[in-house]
Amino acid sequence: MSESDRYVALSRYVLGGGLDASCFELRERPKPRPGQGQVLLQALALSADPYMRSRMTGQDTFFLPQYALGAPIESLGVARVVESRNPSYKEGDLVTGLVEWADYSVWNGHGKLDGGGLLLPVASSIPKISHALGVYGLNGLTALFGILYVARPKPGETLVVSGAAGGIGTIAGQIAKIMGARVVGIAGSAAKCAVLLQQLGFDDALDYRLPSFQSDLQTRVPNGADIYFDNVGGKLSQTVMWQMRRQARVIECGQISTYEDPSGGWQVDIRPIHAKGLRWESFTTAHFQELMPGATAQLIHWVEAGKLTVLETEYHGLQSAPQAMIGIMSGENIGKTVVNLTAAAA
Amino acid sequence: MSESDRYVALSRYVLGGGLDASCFELRERPKPRPGQGQVLLQALALSADPYMRSRMTGQDTFFLPQYALGAPIESLGVARVVESRNPSYKEGDLVTGLVEWADYSVWNGHGKLDGGGLLLPVASSIPKISHALGVYGLNGLTALFGILYVARPKPGETLVVSGAAGGIGTIAGQIAKIMGARVVGIAGSAAKCAVLLQQLGFDDALDYRLPSFQSDLQTRVPNGADIYFDNVGGKLSQTVMWQMRRQARVIECGQISTYEDPSGGWQVDIRPIHAKGLRWESFTTAHFQELMPGATAQLIHWVEAGKLTVLETEYHGLQSAPQAMIGIMSGENIGKTVVNLTAAAA
Repeated sequence: MSESDRYVALSRYVLGGGLDASCFELRERPKPRPGQGQVLLQALALSADPYMRSRMTGQDTFFLPQYALGAPIESLGVARVVESRNPSYKEGDLVTGLVEWADYSVWNGHGKLDGGGLLLPVASSIPKISHALGVYGLNGLTALFGILYVARPKPGETLVVSGAAGGIGTIAGQIAKIMGARVVGIAGSAAKCAVLLQQLGFDDALDYRLPSFQSDLQTRVPNGADIYFDNVGGKLSQTVMWQMRRQARVIECGQISTYEDPSGGWQVDIRPIHAKGLRWESFTTAHFQELMPGATAQLIHWVEAGKLTVLETEYHGLQSAPQAMIGIMSGENIGKTVVNLTAAAA
Repeated sequence: MSESDRYVALSRYVLGGGLDASCFELRERPKPRPGQGQVLLQALALSADPYMRSRMTGQDTFFLPQYALGAPIESLGVARVVESRNPSYKEGDLVTGLVEWADYSVWNGHGKLDGGGLLLPVASSIPKISHALGVYGLNGLTALFGILYVARPKPGETLVVSGAAGGIGTIAGQIAKIMGARVVGIAGSAAKCAVLLQQLGFDDALDYRLPSFQSDLQTRVPNGADIYFDNVGGKLSQTVMWQMRRQARVIECGQISTYEDPSGGWQVDIRPIHAKGLRWESFTTAHFQELMPGATAQLIHWVEAGKLTVLETEYHGLQSAPQAMIGIMSGENIGKTVVNLTAAAA
């Protein structure tokens, strides 16, 4: 009898409204076997990221494919090579790239989305392997590219960041601080705001769920932000944009609040952009792929120098992966959301 | 018995869908009389502009007030001072500013929207008074500010302009040509495209109503536009943006297709902006008010030097003003839409 393997599948698409446990199933399959040129991976840590929600709507995003129902969800992950039929990898290598939400998956040897199809080595010196998904992974790189190459804050400018307590926001805000900006974080609870102020050194933090949010913003950013680094979109961002100074910059990094919009589109009401003459810029990490080596080295430097604090919300075990995704969409996380499988892997 | 005056009022708000003649009424009132500091104006030409549509929805735009039902519609216009109780104006002066859609209206002596509340002199040397509303008015200034200060095309760059045959598009495209760009116009009929190519010297012109529009765009702008100067928004602009090169610039000048959207918002699906890392900038002429004198002089220079061709769609008589507005929203116009009242005024 062949060995079996567990995996998490999406059981139905949800367009509009929230995910719940019934959207996912834990299933079994025969343990996959690598073909010529391929590699068998044992997953050690999985990433849950907001962008994945837009692959669960059943509606074409035009740039990210939908997850197939009943098939393993895939995300970035850290894995151990347990069998290699590819000369570039050997058994025992610690790697990061797109993996399935499964105990075992096969890297097929060619390009796929997001990881650029690459299976990259993970330095064994990093203190926690999940950092390869967070501060040294898509989150950290996105934050660095967004702040250094798109937002480009000048010393003394006020940068407002939404989703400030999230995987990208925590790092983006800290990098903007390093660059000399006054950083105001927007997050969804008093506890998150306290973390931003006390652990990450933000200059100010506002809870957007308070009824006083709009007037708080007027009081605490009286001249309007110079830069709005937006991870959230929707109504929250409308409030912020109406409050910006003329010809200020909006940097769109993500739009988590719109990923569950029933229209399926990432809809932005541009009236504040028009009325205030704002500049809106978007980017994805893929646009900066050429700059990844230096960016990673810079992030390592800042973490090791104690200038960048890394926060994580951890889930344990493959069966908890759906809850990690549900949690990130309902704002339960602080910092990077990871699913550690290491106990199971031991 | 007091003299009477005719005016055009909005009879109902229309949120979603098109205007028709039943949305307007021609009404009578006593001829208005100027108070201390005020001026009585006789309208000579009225402007119909797409932005006015967003004052006819009944929904707060957050920056332009709704027209009151039953009260005179107001727009920019050219008028003759027929009675002055303000030392800055004298009888017979030719002026431009916000006027009512009426034979007579009173300028109240203080600030109002759009015209900046100003009642500005019109040089009697201009060949047609309606030019004070078009090429030397809001349309020409918007086109000039948008091209010279926001889009800033470099020689050899490809600039795609939507609403290319409209009041702003015709001028924006010609200014971009003067600055050395390759200019591709998008318009809604073969006749309009012919005008762009033959009368205005555009490099290329595409009819977005053809089923082949998307593939035409791919063929004729194979490397993607460097700049998209957008007067239209909606589905048309989605098609253009998916076709742009990475990190190209979108200049949002107007969104005529969204002014009749039932949501009331100016909704933009930002997925192409995100996926291609585009930069989106918006502006209004109000942001450049300080630069109006030089801009007007520049426009006069280009017109008189034969470098800027002025096109108009003219309606005649106050009773035709509703049709001018309906026509502009359904794309009947080529160039600036004006309502001439001069025969009535003669």
